[in-house]
Amino acid sequence: MASDEKIEETLRFTPAFDQKGLVPVVAQDAETGQVLMLAYMNEQALRQTVRTGRATYYSRSRKGLWTKGEQSGHTQHVKEILVDCDQDCLLLKVSAEGGQCHAGYKSCFYRRLDSDGSRLARIMERVFDPNRVYGKP
Amino acid sequence: MASDEKIEETLRFTPAFDQKGLVPVVAQDAETGQVLMLAYMNEQALRQTVRTGRATYYSRSRKGLWTKGEQSGHTQHVKEILVDCDQDCLLLKVSAEGGQCHAGYKSCFYRRLDSDGSRLARIMERVFDPNRVYGKP
Repeated sequence: MASDEKIEETLRFTPAFDQKGLVPVVAQDAETGQVLMLAYMNEQALRQTVRTGRATYYSRSRKGLWTKGEQSGHTQHVKEILVDCDQDCLLLKVSAEGGQCHAGYKSCFYRRLDSDGSRLARIMERVFDPNRVYGKP
Repeated sequence: MASDEKIEETLRFTPAFDQKGLVPVVAQDAETGQVLMLAYMNEQALRQTVRTGRATYYSRSRKGLWTKGEQSGHTQHVKEILVDCDQDCLLLKVSAEGGQCHAGYKSCFYRRLDSDGSRLARIMERVFDPNRVYGKP
């Protein structure tokens, strides 16, 4: 294994997938800077993302690859892929079409915690109706 | 357990810690929108962050709490805590003093992947010398 020093200095891309073969990925709107979501990639999802320029993740619940927007049309076109110091997290800067959250919001982070840490407040309006996009549950 | 629908709709804060009792946390500069780092919190770190207004994380390598900046002085003053749709990720908007990465950069995401997905390029300059801040390894 590379030493701590090396992983932070190297210009070789050696992403540190965890025990489940996954790495967390932050998706950020390349234009507005808005953080859209956190998702996970395995090696195959990462390779497909690099090859196609469209963000593809690994769904831990469905146990398979999913290209963002394959059902909703709300794709993420990848502008940049950044890697962190330990190479155990990626940051995708994307051009994002439509609401990026399956709950109907532009970003998954549509609720804010109050100052005493117990209650949430909704700070965004929905940009689409998930029942219309994904069908009634 | 709450249903999927409920976790996305509820205004009750019920963070979904993973099997290790951790939740991933994205730290973002509240002013510039720059994504600074990804770290993890356990319940205690989260409670301390809410109480003190200074970001406190759980170090998986050191297996203990660390308040960001306790050694370097590069603290994170928390402006907002957002939670995502599934309540399994937090987004901290912070006012961040100094370089936020232990490798000496403003952000941990100081390297960009090239278009064929193999080599990295450094896209930031160091803002401090880690050897001076943390001591020689």
